[in-house]
Amino acid sequence: MNSLLSLILGRRLANREVQRRKIGAFAGVPAMGLDAIGSSSYGPEAALTILAPLGAASLDYILPITAAILVLLAILYVSYRQTIHAYPSSGGAYTVAKENLGTQASLLAAAALMVDYILNVAVAISAGIAALVSAFPALAPHTLMLCLATLTIITLANLRGTGEAGRMWALPTYTFVASFAVVIGMGVAKAIASGGHPAPIAPPPPLADSAAAAGLWLALRSFSAGCTAMTGVEAVSNGISAFREPSTRYARRTLLSIVLILGVLLAGIAYLVQAYGIGAMDQTQDGYQSVLSQLAAAVAGRGVLYYIAIGSLLCVLVLSANTSFVDFPRLCQMVARDSFLPRAFAVAGRRLVYDVGILYLASTAALLLIAFGGITDRLIPMFAIGAFLTFTLSQTGMVVHWHREQKKTRHVDSHVAARLAVNAVGATTTGVALAVILTTKFIEGAWITVLVIPAVIFLLRKIRQYYDEVGARTRKVEPLAITHVDPPIVIVPTENWSRLTDRALAFALQISPDVIGVHLTSLNGPDDDSEKETHLREQWRIDVEEPVRAAGITPPRLVVLPSHYRNIHGPLLKFISEVEEKQPDRQIAVVIPELVKLTWWQHLLHTHRARRLRAALLRYGGSRLVVMNIPWYLEEPRPAEALEPEAAPPAHRPHVIRARAR
Amino acid sequence: MNSLLSLILGRRLANREVQRRKIGAFAGVPAMGLDAIGSSSYGPEAALTILAPLGAASLDYILPITAAILVLLAILYVSYRQTIHAYPSSGGAYTVAKENLGTQASLLAAAALMVDYILNVAVAISAGIAALVSAFPALAPHTLMLCLATLTIITLANLRGTGEAGRMWALPTYTFVASFAVVIGMGVAKAIASGGHPAPIAPPPPLADSAAAAGLWLALRSFSAGCTAMTGVEAVSNGISAFREPSTRYARRTLLSIVLILGVLLAGIAYLVQAYGIGAMDQTQDGYQSVLSQLAAAVAGRGVLYYIAIGSLLCVLVLSANTSFVDFPRLCQMVARDSFLPRAFAVAGRRLVYDVGILYLASTAALLLIAFGGITDRLIPMFAIGAFLTFTLSQTGMVVHWHREQKKTRHVDSHVAARLAVNAVGATTTGVALAVILTTKFIEGAWITVLVIPAVIFLLRKIRQYYDEVGARTRKVEPLAITHVDPPIVIVPTENWSRLTDRALAFALQISPDVIGVHLTSLNGPDDDSEKETHLREQWRIDVEEPVRAAGITPPRLVVLPSHYRNIHGPLLKFISEVEEKQPDRQIAVVIPELVKLTWWQHLLHTHRARRLRAALLRYGGSRLVVMNIPWYLEEPRPAEALEPEAAPPAHRPHVIRARAR
Repeated sequence: MNSLLSLILGRRLANREVQRRKIGAFAGVPAMGLDAIGSSSYGPEAALTILAPLGAASLDYILPITAAILVLLAILYVSYRQTIHAYPSSGGAYTVAKENLGTQASLLAAAALMVDYILNVAVAISAGIAALVSAFPALAPHTLMLCLATLTIITLANLRGTGEAGRMWALPTYTFVASFAVVIGMGVAKAIASGGHPAPIAPPPPLADSAAAAGLWLALRSFSAGCTAMTGVEAVSNGISAFREPSTRYARRTLLSIVLILGVLLAGIAYLVQAYGIGAMDQTQDGYQSVLSQLAAAVAGRGVLYYIAIGSLLCVLVLSANTSFVDFPRLCQMVARDSFLPRAFAVAGRRLVYDVGILYLASTAALLLIAFGGITDRLIPMFAIGAFLTFTLSQTGMVVHWHREQKKTRHVDSHVAARLAVNAVGATTTGVALAVILTTKFIEGAWITVLVIPAVIFLLRKIRQYYDEVGARTRKVEPLAITHVDPPIVIVPTENWSRLTDRALAFALQISPDVIGVHLTSLNGPDDDSEKETHLREQWRIDVEEPVRAAGITPPRLVVLPSHYRNIHGPLLKFISEVEEKQPDRQIAVVIPELVKLTWWQHLLHTHRARRLRAALLRYGGSRLVVMNIPWYLEEPRPAEALEPEAAPPAHRPHVIRARAR
Repeated sequence: MNSLLSLILGRRLANREVQRRKIGAFAGVPAMGLDAIGSSSYGPEAALTILAPLGAASLDYILPITAAILVLLAILYVSYRQTIHAYPSSGGAYTVAKENLGTQASLLAAAALMVDYILNVAVAISAGIAALVSAFPALAPHTLMLCLATLTIITLANLRGTGEAGRMWALPTYTFVASFAVVIGMGVAKAIASGGHPAPIAPPPPLADSAAAAGLWLALRSFSAGCTAMTGVEAVSNGISAFREPSTRYARRTLLSIVLILGVLLAGIAYLVQAYGIGAMDQTQDGYQSVLSQLAAAVAGRGVLYYIAIGSLLCVLVLSANTSFVDFPRLCQMVARDSFLPRAFAVAGRRLVYDVGILYLASTAALLLIAFGGITDRLIPMFAIGAFLTFTLSQTGMVVHWHREQKKTRHVDSHVAARLAVNAVGATTTGVALAVILTTKFIEGAWITVLVIPAVIFLLRKIRQYYDEVGARTRKVEPLAITHVDPPIVIVPTENWSRLTDRALAFALQISPDVIGVHLTSLNGPDDDSEKETHLREQWRIDVEEPVRAAGITPPRLVVLPSHYRNIHGPLLKFISEVEEKQPDRQIAVVIPELVKLTWWQHLLHTHRARRLRAALLRYGGSRLVVMNIPWYLEEPRPAEALEPEAAPPAHRPHVIRARAR
């Protein structure tokens, strides 16, 4: 089991190895940036799709709309840069909102981000696989299976570690960036050389003449659709803890790289789309080609470069799910630390990543994929809301933050004032964008997000409430109270007397003078041919009472209880409550000898009565009861087994063994 | 959970209710007899199929072959009657072979019976469903699902109890018997009235003229095929323990009923087949009709009687799986009592039947059905071998038994001699039949049985060997040894100090003066911001050391251990082995406080470190370790909850509660 896990996930890492596990900008861009970079493919496409009714006239709008988006992107970059600086340990929206806007806002940010991250995984993978399937229609029947297989690969890579995942995806990421840099560079050069009207190598389908009139509403809708290109920009701020020291520097560097790549792509695409006259095609029609595919074909023809560019784009689309895998577990860890999520989310796993968060993300996304059969188009409208809600909350939080800083310093600091201004502009613009997105996409499906987020917040609050209750009950309020130190009454239950029960009795006599042996009969059913009571008592006298008396100890007494319903816990619990009634100020200890099973087939060969008795006693025994387990081994275990495989990296192990053999 | 089980299976039964649960002959025939009675449909058909190449001439052979089968049946009846008399508690082949032929023979009988019973379930259900599907071809795509649904119903009925199952199947069974009694009676009357050549109402397809020459080999093959009509006759002898007292009488009465029904059916079918000129049709051809269907149509026409007869036959075919459900768990119980099967097979369950055997039978049969897609024709050749092997072993065992009886009485007892003779004839005939079946069916698939049975025996022996080993190691060989009575060194591990740990510490101080508190740090990962060691030590001094010293007890010491790999057991096991080395003659007790979870969502909200620590300590701790669990409740449990629902039948419960409220 452990060796299989080692093979798949690598050896268990020690806490002290955490610094070595952190990443720089090279792995940071593939790990966290693919959500943003991948958006460059569907942002412009979404904007053009809204403009499609305008026909060729749509091209007049794409440049100003892209310019607006780029301005927003620049504002976001500057303000997130500031956020990272101000909250160097974790500058995510959750922390910023918690520190500056209060719990309710932080839970809103957390819920929005969680929903967003889960949707991102499902949508990214199914979009990527849909692109693959449209290239190879023979794969269509396996869509769901391909989605789940991809999900599994990304999950395993992230369970190995954020760095591993980042390095694994570096090749497709940088191939994508390089190939589209070449395509855009070539395109721009040709466009300039041809005076703005380059001849396409593979010409895109011609655009119709203006069919509808343009208007502000259409432009707004197109802008809000294009804004999906910006989802993922917040990723770095949520994942700062993944970077190595100085984490602020690496985080900023990663953020800058991502924003630059995205900006150049968006600008280049907008320019070339207009130069080559490329519009969005109807996805539901046969022969559909994405905007980027038309663009690459127009600029470079359908040659090697085209296939490299489109192939790596497909990888990037699928792998943009990785951003969620980096940020979601880290977000959940912070939320769990504040007791709004189960504690297990806050525990670093085998490879120092938060396994529970990763597995939860993977399984929820898998459920979504299965529920929608691997085609998650309908989820897309729910998508951008979370991102822009988070943008707005984070920016607003930062405005409050700078405002407080200003108050603290008690004089007007022009630096702080400038920062406040940037974040205020950011908050306003993203808030407006959010309002536009909400309005334009409400009927299409955004209303679901509006319903889901409050439900998530309710759940988070309920979890916190439970922990608060448990905390209040278990909190240590006063020094240890030593009320009575009488040893407990010890009960040794058994179905037949063996060396196991001998050990249990011997131990019971060590800790208390009041020991009761309880023999249970009829455990196997009415035909159980157990020994007769008189015989039992005689054996007890010879085997137990006499040697104990000889050692100068009060001998334990024997109680024989029939089990009418073939369980040990029934008669035993009844007996215990009788003893408790007679001895109201004593604790009761039950000593259960247990044969330790080491292999799977041993589990099949034993009846697990010891385990079941323990569970029932702990469940129903009450707080005056203590359950003691005495292990009994067919072969004495070596505790080293439990430690060795984890204590040293596998490569060093033979060495360690040799050193010890000396 | 418990109430759901109560609804499906009925309340848990007490051991003392066992007599009321046993059955008489009325329920005995449907419970155990359907395997034998159902055979009347495929035995004659199988014999006629072998004779089919003879065409019309086949009808000359069917009477003598049936006569031979009836003689064998009579011998089997008499000898099983004797067996039941001689072994009134369980006269199955396993017991008889064990008592008279030794372990190897008894295991051979057990393995043969087990394989036979499992095959019977799969074959019976799939044959019944195949007949249903051939009547309603629209059901064909659901064959497997229908098989599994039927299996589930039969399994649930038998989990409720053998009597419940018997009474549930009484209606279809006695309908089948009555309707075919009428058909055969009418047919015979018509045949006699018409001088041996009755006119069929719905004429069967005409038989071809003799196409091939008959021979001894063909007759032998036909006889051995017809012998499948006898499988299931041994069922009563294996299930005697299901009958109420005097069980011998009820068992004999049931056996007699079954054999009489079967004999009359076989004789009537053979006579009418010959009178009406009915042959076996090719199952692979369209328009196939079974022999019994042709016969019922010929005698009674396709009216109400026909449909009642064929409908109840279909039920009987499906329900003949029930015989296995009665006998297999009882056989396994006996084998498990002799330690050749896991102990769980010998434990009477909720409803005083052997649940584990029933569930094992059901799941193995389900696997067979799934593996063969619900069409188990290919399993049929493997089928009769087990039955005839058991017949032979049981008869041979009885011969040895009577031989011993003769020796015991030391004079020739004519009664015993007669019985020996009957069983000797039985053994010889069934032995010959076994040889014929093996020879004729070897290539068709009987060789698989020949391979599987030794494999099962090997497994049974391995299981016994394991139990013998465990038994030898755990057997109590001498009176209780009181070597040293020093209290153990008690370790109280914790991740943070709360009222739970206070209770654990207070208990530890009750049982030993040597207590060590172990505080584990860095459990959640490298970022774990646990309290500083100096702060901890200060708190320990005030909260623990001072009050304990004030109570006049040696205060426990505190050890702080960092957990590099985020588990409690690693550093703790290392610490324990250090303590053990220093104190070679003391036991170590670890006290684990555990918050008891009562609902499923509580399980999600806690990290289960207490449970995992206990498992690791028991697994690796070694035999000087004792693990103590101190339960801690958010709400004190009422032990009555664990007892009440099972202590009294549901109908009486309100009464009990009222009586207590006074």
